[in-house]
Amino acid sequence: MDIQQLDQFAKSIIFEAGSRIRQAFSYNLVIETKSGANDLVTNIDRETELFFIDKIRAFDPSHKILGEEGMGEQVESLDGIVWIIDPIDGTMNFVKQHRHFMISIGIFINGIGKLGYIFDVMREDLFYAIAGEGAWYNESPLRKLTSVKIEEAVIGINAHWVAPNRHIHHEKVIDMVRKVRGTRSYGSAAMEIAFVVSGKLDAYVSMRLSPWDIAGGTIIAHEVGAVATNLHGEGFDFLHQDTFIIANPSIHKELLDKYIVPYE
Amino acid sequence: MDIQQLDQFAKSIIFEAGSRIRQAFSYNLVIETKSGANDLVTNIDRETELFFIDKIRAFDPSHKILGEEGMGEQVESLDGIVWIIDPIDGTMNFVKQHRHFMISIGIFINGIGKLGYIFDVMREDLFYAIAGEGAWYNESPLRKLTSVKIEEAVIGINAHWVAPNRHIHHEKVIDMVRKVRGTRSYGSAAMEIAFVVSGKLDAYVSMRLSPWDIAGGTIIAHEVGAVATNLHGEGFDFLHQDTFIIANPSIHKELLDKYIVPYE
Repeated sequence: MDIQQLDQFAKSIIFEAGSRIRQAFSYNLVIETKSGANDLVTNIDRETELFFIDKIRAFDPSHKILGEEGMGEQVESLDGIVWIIDPIDGTMNFVKQHRHFMISIGIFINGIGKLGYIFDVMREDLFYAIAGEGAWYNESPLRKLTSVKIEEAVIGINAHWVAPNRHIHHEKVIDMVRKVRGTRSYGSAAMEIAFVVSGKLDAYVSMRLSPWDIAGGTIIAHEVGAVATNLHGEGFDFLHQDTFIIANPSIHKELLDKYIVPYE
Repeated sequence: MDIQQLDQFAKSIIFEAGSRIRQAFSYNLVIETKSGANDLVTNIDRETELFFIDKIRAFDPSHKILGEEGMGEQVESLDGIVWIIDPIDGTMNFVKQHRHFMISIGIFINGIGKLGYIFDVMREDLFYAIAGEGAWYNESPLRKLTSVKIEEAVIGINAHWVAPNRHIHHEKVIDMVRKVRGTRSYGSAAMEIAFVVSGKLDAYVSMRLSPWDIAGGTIIAHEVGAVATNLHGEGFDFLHQDTFIIANPSIHKELLDKYIVPYE
């Protein structure tokens, strides 16, 4: 498989899908049919996944597709060429905010992440990477992340994990909230991951993500030196749900040692 | 004073200031001089406030100006025509994210909010209102907020207030986090207020804001039916710091009664 050709094809269908979503997504339509907003996003989510499946099958029917909406086949291994697709990450943002939702795609070849994409549909902003060749934000290369002290860091974390919960020691999260420069929460894992790989955040943590939430992002992460693992510091399982942290390499270990500590 | 003329003038200087900030704010400059990023934002903050002061004085020297950077005169009353200006709200976002920072302006005549503006500088998105005539998001009218149930609400709140703190009962905030559809945190009060008046969030709370953080937003709030008060449910004091909540009218009282409860 020619990686450059695959990259050009992936970008072309991402841009086309984005354009279709922006067209389908009429501001007035969402406003007028508030009760129907959830149906609308579900429909656009499914239609977008089907659009990707049709295009990819026409491009090369041997490629496998693992999608959030489950419209592709059952994927039980990462053998061969596998696309992991989230057609709309941030559906609540889609419904209420009409912004801050992403198309996220990772392409794996025999289990190795080769191409990663996070596309901010409304801004038409593309974060992407080609394994071994680098990462880009639109036309600008993304640089390797420079080190940051925990006191200067801005962390993406949901308010749930600052409260008592069954996943992580919330007292340690409180310590972190008090220690760092600031926290943010955007309601889209792909958006927060895109912000970490481009230095707009220094880390992002989540208690339960699916492969399609992070597949694209982890491939970009590798190119800029961001460290992406589960909360035990191990590689994320791309066939199942798992905990997740992506961080600037200078604070990844410190976050897991001191602040983001799972119960089991 | 002709309000339409004042509105046209205010918009013209906001757009010009935005253009100047985008020019001054070279992506490469910020990246190359990371240690100097704080100085850079301070300089641009001050220059922008001075730009507004010069333009307003040339327009009508009788207008008073209360600005975050304190480059205007000491304003001790809201008599006459008073501009309350935050040249850059969200300075940490400015430095790290190169987005999500706002120009916020409110114009008061004898203590009554008449014109309000929140301008997302990088998106070139303007939220604004003319008292008694309505509110707009760019060219589109903003509608009166429709009611929302607390279970469906998305709330802007900083993670600090979910942890034990000396301002509000954090156990009640935890109840809220568990009850609502979601929470968000963007690091710019003006951005979160703009999101509430346009229905992208259903409420936003803060423990300490200054007049320039909210002056523009509260004038827009009034036109769309959002309720803006301090955490005791009283009008915000526009000459001092105060606590703050802005909410969809259907949940403002419930939030203050059950979830956002100050100690004293």
